[in-house]
Amino acid sequence: MNDSVYMAEALSLARRGIYTVTPNPAVGCVLVRDGVVIGRGWHKQAGGHHAEINAMRDACEQAGLDPNDAQARNQACAGADCYVTLEPCSHTGRTGPCAAALIEAGIARLVYAMEDPNPQVAGRGLEMLEDAGIAVAGPVLEDEALALNRGFVRRMSRGRPWMRCKLAMSLDGRTAMESGESHWVTARRAREDVQRLRAASCAIVSGVDTVLLDKASLTVRREDWLEAPEGEEIRQPLRVVLDSTGRLTADAPLVQLPFPILLIHTEEVDASGWPDHVEHLVVPARDGRVSPLAVVQELAKRGINEVLVEAGAKVAGSFLRLGLLDELIIYMAPKLLGNKARGLFDLPIDAMAGQLPLEIKDMRAVGQDWRITAVPDFDS
Amino acid sequence: MNDSVYMAEALSLARRGIYTVTPNPAVGCVLVRDGVVIGRGWHKQAGGHHAEINAMRDACEQAGLDPNDAQARNQACAGADCYVTLEPCSHTGRTGPCAAALIEAGIARLVYAMEDPNPQVAGRGLEMLEDAGIAVAGPVLEDEALALNRGFVRRMSRGRPWMRCKLAMSLDGRTAMESGESHWVTARRAREDVQRLRAASCAIVSGVDTVLLDKASLTVRREDWLEAPEGEEIRQPLRVVLDSTGRLTADAPLVQLPFPILLIHTEEVDASGWPDHVEHLVVPARDGRVSPLAVVQELAKRGINEVLVEAGAKVAGSFLRLGLLDELIIYMAPKLLGNKARGLFDLPIDAMAGQLPLEIKDMRAVGQDWRITAVPDFDS
Repeated sequence: MNDSVYMAEALSLARRGIYTVTPNPAVGCVLVRDGVVIGRGWHKQAGGHHAEINAMRDACEQAGLDPNDAQARNQACAGADCYVTLEPCSHTGRTGPCAAALIEAGIARLVYAMEDPNPQVAGRGLEMLEDAGIAVAGPVLEDEALALNRGFVRRMSRGRPWMRCKLAMSLDGRTAMESGESHWVTARRAREDVQRLRAASCAIVSGVDTVLLDKASLTVRREDWLEAPEGEEIRQPLRVVLDSTGRLTADAPLVQLPFPILLIHTEEVDASGWPDHVEHLVVPARDGRVSPLAVVQELAKRGINEVLVEAGAKVAGSFLRLGLLDELIIYMAPKLLGNKARGLFDLPIDAMAGQLPLEIKDMRAVGQDWRITAVPDFDS
Repeated sequence: MNDSVYMAEALSLARRGIYTVTPNPAVGCVLVRDGVVIGRGWHKQAGGHHAEINAMRDACEQAGLDPNDAQARNQACAGADCYVTLEPCSHTGRTGPCAAALIEAGIARLVYAMEDPNPQVAGRGLEMLEDAGIAVAGPVLEDEALALNRGFVRRMSRGRPWMRCKLAMSLDGRTAMESGESHWVTARRAREDVQRLRAASCAIVSGVDTVLLDKASLTVRREDWLEAPEGEEIRQPLRVVLDSTGRLTADAPLVQLPFPILLIHTEEVDASGWPDHVEHLVVPARDGRVSPLAVVQELAKRGINEVLVEAGAKVAGSFLRLGLLDELIIYMAPKLLGNKARGLFDLPIDAMAGQLPLEIKDMRAVGQDWRITAVPDFDS
């Protein structure tokens, strides 16, 4: 069977959407007839055509037919196998249900990579197709599909985003001098890699101390992002700053850039005099600081799938100790900074028995630094 | 030319001696005639035959001749090419000069990997051979040969041993709890790897705090050393404990094991009541502690080629800041211990400009942990 070959192509089409598709999942679709790919599609952004529709439109165009004509679509697609990385939707959202469109186009067989974890769909798309007499097969390459949309899946299934924490440290686990000076722990290539992480994130979370100290902008910088799409606007992630008592001021460098900012406080602050792209939100405190759980819940509510935490040891540690970090991306620079320098995570661990076990998923050289990808290992 | 092939075999013969040969260098030798290896030898321990002699004796035995008979030796070896990883010695030490023995045996050509850095030899062995009309070629695979005997080379050329520092840390650079508890940061496979490091070392240096806290024995444990030679006694490295004011007592676990111990103090202590295998030495203080430089010089004077420093952040840091560590072997465990835990190196660094750059030479998985081999990068 070639199902996994075509599905792999559908997955790689889906991947093209990861920097723009939020809050939707990235989806790819391939139409195949008589062993020939007759149409390819992917979902680029919310409000735009879904992957299945784009694949059918592509099939029309390949056949010299009008993609907007339903009859032409049936002519182009009838009898085809449809490979799609996510179960087709059965509900009418901003667009009509894809399952109905595929039925109308007369496809013969549908192969899916994963079911839709969205409770509004959850198997009903597949049911609609089966009820219409279409052969349905799957899951195929399900792990790859789940990994591609881990944030969307996490939000749908557990009501919170995929929380990724990025840190840059020396070989002896130090992120900055005692004074806070940290420019630069890692080298250029690793810092460029971080731009890619930012571009793939729906939101970036930082603490006010880090933002003030580093004069951070928390944006995706075109000049440092090697994969930046030419001639296209870059989608900027929502910038979230945990600022309990409202210490950030409107003249901070990140406020000067006109992309959305969410300032989270634990008490009401004077919101007058701030530009329109800055929103203030008050959430409950935990240990006198912004509650990490409240942040996670608020972001999920806003349709945020993937979050990049870029913060100091206190904020990062506060998320980690509550089990709210799903993945750590640690850039390790070949240097020593010594024991006076700042560490990675403030954690309340006093005995070896309290250690936090990790599973290392990936370790590779990025320029002269090393990138370690690890996940908390709750099984050990 | 097959010179590098035969030299590679000589190097792998030399490698057999690394656990026993101290204070001598590890040397291997291959004799080749008409494209056939007729004898192999290596140097096992000081006072025993050198590699060249062993290779000639092997050639005699292979030919059914008496290895103790000079004429038989000539019969067996005449006209052969001799591949030896270190320039043959020209001086009479515990054994006669190898260069003379090779001349007497009538070898036709000598290929060497590296010159002898020993000032007592330093090219004179090669000269003797050339003067006798023997063709001399080399160096061949010199880098490999230098690496094999880096401790001997360092001691001969710079008057100090190769100083290797081993540390076990969590991913966030922590070696122990605040309380000192550290059993265990790394897993079994990494701890077995450390036994191999100890076995290859001529001396192990630790601080009295670490020895007392860990109840350390600092020996090579047969049951944990996977490559331990069966049926042979294990050579134990000299155990060196930096104990400025004489806090170690004769009932400490490491004293119970009857292998040599050198206790280094900065003031006279009462040496009565200690077993014979314990030696006391007073050296100058530096910053109120045992001077690291004095330790290094003392060990070189004693013919110590390779030292393994297994100590806490203070002792390790004191060697490192003086530029006395040549190599770091860091076992990194996939876990977090948090910022209250103890760090790797106490270093007087207050600004990023003071960072200590490293070059990472090797990074690999050892069981569930990772082993990082790094050297201070004085060029950057």
